[in-house]
Amino acid sequence: MEKIVHAGLLGMGTVGTGVVKILAKNAHDILQKVGMPVNIKKIMVRQLDKPRNVDSNAEFTTNIDDIINDKDIDIVVELMGGIEPAKDYILQALRAGKHVITANKDVVAKCGQEILQVAEENKVDFLFEASVAGGIPIIRPLKQCLAANKISEVVGIINGTTNYMLTKMTNEGLDFDSVLAEAQAKGYAEADPTADVGGLDAARKIAILASIAFGSRVSVDDVYVEGITNISKADIGYAKELGYVIKLLAIAKDDERGIDVRVHPAFIPSSHPLASVHDVFNAIYIKGDAVGETMFYGRGAGEMPTASAVVADIIDVARNIKHNANSRILCTCFEEKSFCPVEQTESPYYIRLLVEDKPGVLAAIAGAFGAQLVSLHSVIQKSKVANCSELVLITNQVADASLRLAINTLAGLSVVNKVCNVIRVEADNFG
Amino acid sequence: MEKIVHAGLLGMGTVGTGVVKILAKNAHDILQKVGMPVNIKKIMVRQLDKPRNVDSNAEFTTNIDDIINDKDIDIVVELMGGIEPAKDYILQALRAGKHVITANKDVVAKCGQEILQVAEENKVDFLFEASVAGGIPIIRPLKQCLAANKISEVVGIINGTTNYMLTKMTNEGLDFDSVLAEAQAKGYAEADPTADVGGLDAARKIAILASIAFGSRVSVDDVYVEGITNISKADIGYAKELGYVIKLLAIAKDDERGIDVRVHPAFIPSSHPLASVHDVFNAIYIKGDAVGETMFYGRGAGEMPTASAVVADIIDVARNIKHNANSRILCTCFEEKSFCPVEQTESPYYIRLLVEDKPGVLAAIAGAFGAQLVSLHSVIQKSKVANCSELVLITNQVADASLRLAINTLAGLSVVNKVCNVIRVEADNFG
Repeated sequence: MEKIVHAGLLGMGTVGTGVVKILAKNAHDILQKVGMPVNIKKIMVRQLDKPRNVDSNAEFTTNIDDIINDKDIDIVVELMGGIEPAKDYILQALRAGKHVITANKDVVAKCGQEILQVAEENKVDFLFEASVAGGIPIIRPLKQCLAANKISEVVGIINGTTNYMLTKMTNEGLDFDSVLAEAQAKGYAEADPTADVGGLDAARKIAILASIAFGSRVSVDDVYVEGITNISKADIGYAKELGYVIKLLAIAKDDERGIDVRVHPAFIPSSHPLASVHDVFNAIYIKGDAVGETMFYGRGAGEMPTASAVVADIIDVARNIKHNANSRILCTCFEEKSFCPVEQTESPYYIRLLVEDKPGVLAAIAGAFGAQLVSLHSVIQKSKVANCSELVLITNQVADASLRLAINTLAGLSVVNKVCNVIRVEADNFG
Repeated sequence: MEKIVHAGLLGMGTVGTGVVKILAKNAHDILQKVGMPVNIKKIMVRQLDKPRNVDSNAEFTTNIDDIINDKDIDIVVELMGGIEPAKDYILQALRAGKHVITANKDVVAKCGQEILQVAEENKVDFLFEASVAGGIPIIRPLKQCLAANKISEVVGIINGTTNYMLTKMTNEGLDFDSVLAEAQAKGYAEADPTADVGGLDAARKIAILASIAFGSRVSVDDVYVEGITNISKADIGYAKELGYVIKLLAIAKDDERGIDVRVHPAFIPSSHPLASVHDVFNAIYIKGDAVGETMFYGRGAGEMPTASAVVADIIDVARNIKHNANSRILCTCFEEKSFCPVEQTESPYYIRLLVEDKPGVLAAIAGAFGAQLVSLHSVIQKSKVANCSELVLITNQVADASLRLAINTLAGLSVVNKVCNVIRVEADNFG
């Protein structure tokens, strides 16, 4: 009898539902591609009696043991999210000799190394394409398609919520709070939007990408994080005026100073490919020593795009089963590279100030920068309100540490009423 | 003793030199990724005494038998281009049980099916990532990363020469001839530019992509082709005015009418991701039923980008050798779908006319369109020269056959001096 590949799903939320739909709809094509049928045998859920908006012949259970102990099940697909019990179930499955696929960025970003080691010991696959950037192929391209390259840079727009918000702010001149409320109403932002707007979600994803791109483990704690909560309508307006757009970038660089990984809002030139990534779309820009610049663009979240990535992993594992080639590609972190502290990273900066409207102000400000050897690229003096002027500065390339010292001095000047915002400019840094 | 993967190169031109460079420079990383060293044992060249701008320990030969009969050689990398003798050598290598990698779009577009069948019979790999879009991962993403999807549309900018020329014409307002001369001077266009500007190069590549995307063989003869030779400064100007850019698109669609594959210049909205693909860059936009819209962007040609794709294939084959899993993914054309004739394809059209400057002209023209049930979306009347007016029309969605009839009628009207250009508009068709 022809072998059937059996999968067990842990979780039947949005992505799980998408996985069931795709495997049903495209069953014929997938059978031809794999050479064997792929079947979902069991699905673990929290509530057996909850109504589902998709039909499945799978057996539903609330007990993980029904899946772990089922000898027929080759692949466990973890779609629960969070660290525990997801991690425990993943490890149980791997130790039971089952291949595991996950869409869970939390568990991969935090426990990826440990999990990959257990997969290696048990000679089974552990794949997680859906954990970063939803439907966009990015893990497999890094591990396979770009494997000939030494990757020096990964720059991503990998949080759909914040990109939607920044796009709205840019196109419609709206402020942060009203755009956040709209995003929440549309279901693009969660009731507690902290992980998205604070940058943590992007930090988890860039930790995963940096680990693979540089072949050296990067954990989420190694990522410097700033969110977009202090980006105002005014900053967006100045960016536009200066030929830039503001994006929440996840940046990972590997050079002689070490690995530099950060998430923060940044000015990018409006002509850069990443500047045209609008709304909830994601994109990842990669620089390799052979390929040069390349970019991967698509939908970073949602039922079907994320399920597209999960099912690609299922097909890959099934093809490995067919050819007895599991554990063909596992952990690729062969090095232990050092990190470059954020203080040593360099870029131009945009600075927006409220200053007294009187003679000598500009000289005092220029002096504060000069003392830290920070040179200014351009200065725009703007709208006067009462006795106040808004002053916008773009510095030349400067180390983060020097910039911070200059800003501290500035904030102490009597002629400076307020340092409104400080945002990095990523310009010559890429492209 | 640890197994070494030995490769034999056929050809040592631009791409071959790049392959040698990458395998030397990134040898350490590649060893770790594969688990075995990869070595170039022999290189077949036309002239043994030609100076090379890269060092190699490989043995140089002018005789294909030295490679085919070498039992140590696992992988033959064909980088000669053209159909013969490349095809003959590829088949010899496969029949000798060697895996074959090629960057040769001609041979894949014309003989892919036959070659893949011989690979299958001999249980060896035949990979050709570099044959389309140089360094951009696209074959592997279609065969693996997007394998869960039914792909309905592939739209690519996959000829760097013409994209460079159209970008120059758009940004600098230059005309076709002067831009072609400049592209030739820079080495972006060949002395005989016919294959590029006439669209044949893009046709070969879209035939390969369509075959994989739709799982049904598309040969270059199935592709409807128009080049960019009649795109003028005036057309570029009107496109800009109307919110579009002109790109040479390679389009493949698969719907209930059959497979529709064509290469032609087209108006695309300037907000579309493909509109930001400038200069020699390439990009491929793909629509799948699960993933939605996705795009892959990068350098479509050149020594190192193309070699990046070739070496990715070498690493893949070497990983298969390590895990005894060769021929894991071969031909994926499981169907035989029918084609949709170009006459039945539909889109809006841009039409530029020179007409007599007198009353009743517009009514006569509208009448010619109305007779074919072609409705007009917008009309712009422009610069008068002597007794002539330039008239620009954008139609609504219309079948190609009806449009042609309307154009024929138009050309016969006494008030129409000249039909200057007719260009498809790809607008609602994607996005």
